[in-house]
Amino acid sequence: MRLIRLGEPGREHPAALVSDTAYVDLSDIVSDFDEAFFAAGRLEEIDRIVARRHADGQVRQLGSQRLGAPIARPHQIICVGLNYRDHAAETGQAVPAEPILFTKSPNTLIGPNDEVRIPCGATKVDWEVELGIVIGRRASYLDSPEDAVAYIAGWVLVNDVSERAFQMERGGQWLKGKSAETFNPAGPWLVTRDEIADVLNLGLRLEVNGVRKQNGCTATMIFDPYALVHYISQFLVLEPGDLINTGTPPGVGMGFSPPQWLTAGDVMDVTGAGLGRQRQLVVGPR
Amino acid sequence: MRLIRLGEPGREHPAALVSDTAYVDLSDIVSDFDEAFFAAGRLEEIDRIVARRHADGQVRQLGSQRLGAPIARPHQIICVGLNYRDHAAETGQAVPAEPILFTKSPNTLIGPNDEVRIPCGATKVDWEVELGIVIGRRASYLDSPEDAVAYIAGWVLVNDVSERAFQMERGGQWLKGKSAETFNPAGPWLVTRDEIADVLNLGLRLEVNGVRKQNGCTATMIFDPYALVHYISQFLVLEPGDLINTGTPPGVGMGFSPPQWLTAGDVMDVTGAGLGRQRQLVVGPR
Repeated sequence: MRLIRLGEPGREHPAALVSDTAYVDLSDIVSDFDEAFFAAGRLEEIDRIVARRHADGQVRQLGSQRLGAPIARPHQIICVGLNYRDHAAETGQAVPAEPILFTKSPNTLIGPNDEVRIPCGATKVDWEVELGIVIGRRASYLDSPEDAVAYIAGWVLVNDVSERAFQMERGGQWLKGKSAETFNPAGPWLVTRDEIADVLNLGLRLEVNGVRKQNGCTATMIFDPYALVHYISQFLVLEPGDLINTGTPPGVGMGFSPPQWLTAGDVMDVTGAGLGRQRQLVVGPR
Repeated sequence: MRLIRLGEPGREHPAALVSDTAYVDLSDIVSDFDEAFFAAGRLEEIDRIVARRHADGQVRQLGSQRLGAPIARPHQIICVGLNYRDHAAETGQAVPAEPILFTKSPNTLIGPNDEVRIPCGATKVDWEVELGIVIGRRASYLDSPEDAVAYIAGWVLVNDVSERAFQMERGGQWLKGKSAETFNPAGPWLVTRDEIADVLNLGLRLEVNGVRKQNGCTATMIFDPYALVHYISQFLVLEPGDLINTGTPPGVGMGFSPPQWLTAGDVMDVTGAGLGRQRQLVVGPR
């Protein structure tokens, strides 16, 4: 099942795709794909309802409606740093012994095709295509990576937009360069866990102005999604609907020589196998 | 005005103190002291209603009811590191040129007298009495520290409980040692900005098992609350109801030689001038 949220920012309504161009509306039975929704464990129920409505012909065309992020603003966005062997190498940093964790402000979450805004004073805005994990159940002190599977609702494509000067040149802790408004495009859809046969073999690509920059595969992840959920659950409690950005493959702007940074007018095309396609126009500061 | 939330975890109802032992219930007119409440700018209205109900004798006694944190789980908890000159010195670190920011998971928030639980595998659990800022209005790119005043709803006493091995010995980024369940006692009350004459002259104290450990004053802060809100708003958007832990004065366990760590059975008594008094029993891991 592929869940989407349609409509203007802050007024999105929940739906499920039945093809790449058609959907079943769910706004009469689900208020939002939020913490309460995931906590209630309603994915199987919704799957049956979507199948029935689809069979009954209760199908609408996508048309030009805006897509929001496929999940409501989560309780937290946890990010993993340097989680691809090849990306760690391009940044000149050692492969970490344990996952590096940082956070983004939850209000960075935007739709897959919304504008990404350069922060005031920014000089080093960068891209990061990533596989996102959406948590399906409250997770604390999980026993093993195998156990973590049941705590994952599904997967989502994200662009972990970053400002490298804010992140690394303004005194400690990365969140300063990760939390600007619009810095977390997500979607177009949340694909449920059952629909991705092998999450460790997904191609992830990102182009800027039509030029391929990132071309990676989740196969080169250092810590896989199940290991990450298990690991993170030893330090904090993951809530239903929480988002985990699992790290980016090589090809970020910081890794080029000389480095490449985004400027107003640039267009990012972001794709993930089974995860869909995003396009963001970069706009100047407020 | 001093706002409180009374009742069992997850079912607290909003109220306002009219003395140290009596309160006016507000649950008929406010659903919670949450993001929507602060966004609606209802503090002045509530102040008038409390005064009227107090005058009408609609007053109840506190008794033995549990106090929750005085605000609902916020969108984010931002923390400031090394923000007291004397604390930076005791940890052997330089006074930072700009505020060091990190985050705690919002679900760490608990009531002022709730139990603090040692995380599984923890060896270095530490205390940190702090002044907390509660944000009253959405804040982005504020022009100056002076402007920040109007974006602050009030102040709250917090204990920024920390696990130092998780924070500093497990690979990058402090949140790993800051986000365990129960690690952010807050309260007993949110005191509105108008009721604290000089927030830069508040004594903060913390005792463990009756022995004074921390005895500081907000006068030795490096970056004052207005400078912090202004600064943070340059990197991210603060939402109404967000909590900022502004850093701790000297006397944390890590600063002693040898260091001192909390163990099950310890009792922390935490006080702040005008901010009230907390008491937490430390309990063992789940």
